Amino acid sequence: MIASCFRAAVLLLGISIGQASAEQLPLPDNLIGAATDGGEALLVGADAREAYFPLADNFVTQKTQSYCGVASMVMVLNASGVPAPPVPEYEPYRTFTQDNLLDERTDAIVSRDTILKQGMTLDELGGVLATQPLAVVVKHAGDTSLDDFRAMGREYLDQPGHFVIVNYLRKAIRQEVGGHISPLAAYDAEADRFLILDVARYKYPPVWVKAEDLFAAMNTPDASNGDRTRGFVLIKTKAAE
Amino acid sequence: MIASCFRAAVLLLGISIGQASAEQLPLPDNLIGAATDGGEALLVGADAREAYFPLADNFVTQKTQSYCGVASMVMVLNASGVPAPPVPEYEPYRTFTQDNLLDERTDAIVSRDTILKQGMTLDELGGVLATQPLAVVVKHAGDTSLDDFRAMGREYLDQPGHFVIVNYLRKAIRQEVGGHISPLAAYDAEADRFLILDVARYKYPPVWVKAEDLFAAMNTPDASNGDRTRGFVLIKTKAAE
Ligand SMILES: [Ca+2]
Ligand SMILES: [Ca+2]
Ligand SMILES: [Ca+2]
Ligand SMILES: [Ca+2]
Repeated sequence: MIASCFRAAVLLLGISIGQASAEQLPLPDNLIGAATDGGEALLVGADAREAYFPLADNFVTQKTQSYCGVASMVMVLNASGVPAPPVPEYEPYRTFTQDNLLDERTDAIVSRDTILKQGMTLDELGGVLATQPLAVVVKHAGDTSLDDFRAMGREYLDQPGHFVIVNYLRKAIRQEVGGHISPLAAYDAEADRFLILDVARYKYPPVWVKAEDLFAAMNTPDASNGDRTRGFVLIKTKAAE
Repeated sequence: MIASCFRAAVLLLGISIGQASAEQLPLPDNLIGAATDGGEALLVGADAREAYFPLADNFVTQKTQSYCGVASMVMVLNASGVPAPPVPEYEPYRTFTQDNLLDERTDAIVSRDTILKQGMTLDELGGVLATQPLAVVVKHAGDTSLDDFRAMGREYLDQPGHFVIVNYLRKAIRQEVGGHISPLAAYDAEADRFLILDVARYKYPPVWVKAEDLFAAMNTPDASNGDRTRGFVLIKTKAAE
């Protein structure tokens, strides 16, 4: 029962040793890094990028190799402007962090101990987000289609206060290797690519991925979620409804 | 002797109480938030933004209210691709964090204890950066001019592997309130504004500031640095030289 993010940590030990000074893994040629000239042009010409700036302004690195879901939620919550909890170091300011988002209420959905050991599933992600003042819809890829995902993803990324988090199998987009969770930030129609702000920043940069490839990577069974398919979560603030 | 960032923490306690659910402070009208429509247009039309994407991909929040200098260095180091130290949580990956950048070598320039108590000065920032394989030039505003700063800043922000960190007095750009340090990411010539990726993300969003206003905010005496003026640090990787 290995859930999101964690499988990557386990399998990678044998794969990437010897890459001492290349601090991130190389990208396969189906992916376009956000900081390359190609990635820059895609963002400038993107047809839906309302989500990009609030998320980029709140980009964080997952604090452990199983915390991709928690980091993704922290980004969306801070970007959405919903009331945040206090942080001792930042008094009197308040913000969501990977240390103050989870509490007894979210432990009832998935315990902090479980997340630390094995990450979280798509349904657990939706459940934790729904404890916040947000409208949250969980979509398993197997219950939807590439066309529906593309249309809904683009629509959400084009509106203030709307966000999309994806749960996908890295291996299916030729990354190393297991289940992963990160927010989407933009969509470009001509290239038919979505921008993933990958929260494992020690490992990969943000990438532009073909809608078809991302959908295929979400449309994979998750053994830690009763073999239901991975998928995406559509999120909007109550104010944006 | 109160240095960068920390003064803000002390004085703000009395100022911003009562802002319970506005998670950041409001921006004065001389500043343009990066995630506003105006900020988005400035980035799209920016005349120098080579630094933006590598820095945005590595944007972090300062871990304490005195760690603005450390957070700024972590962003530039990860963006520059210089070899990074290990992080236990991320094995086998390596990246700079606010916990692994400082060591016995940097303690000889400014101790971790001092940074935690009162932040760091412009000269200390330059000194710590110079322990890395980077070409580092410290410029006190009082030794230069608005025209020189604008020209050098624009030139650096327009080239791969080149970065600029600024040390300025927040009060002088009508923010609250003390000395602060953050990286610049872009410059737009028509607006004559620089984009600051403010590392106190719990307090302010990234802002576009007039070159003249930023220079005036750097051209202020720093009591913790023998009343020398604040200023900027020009940084390039050895590969980019
Ligand atoms: Ca470029
Ligand atoms: Ca387009
Ligand atoms: Ca907008
Ligand atoms: Ca321009």
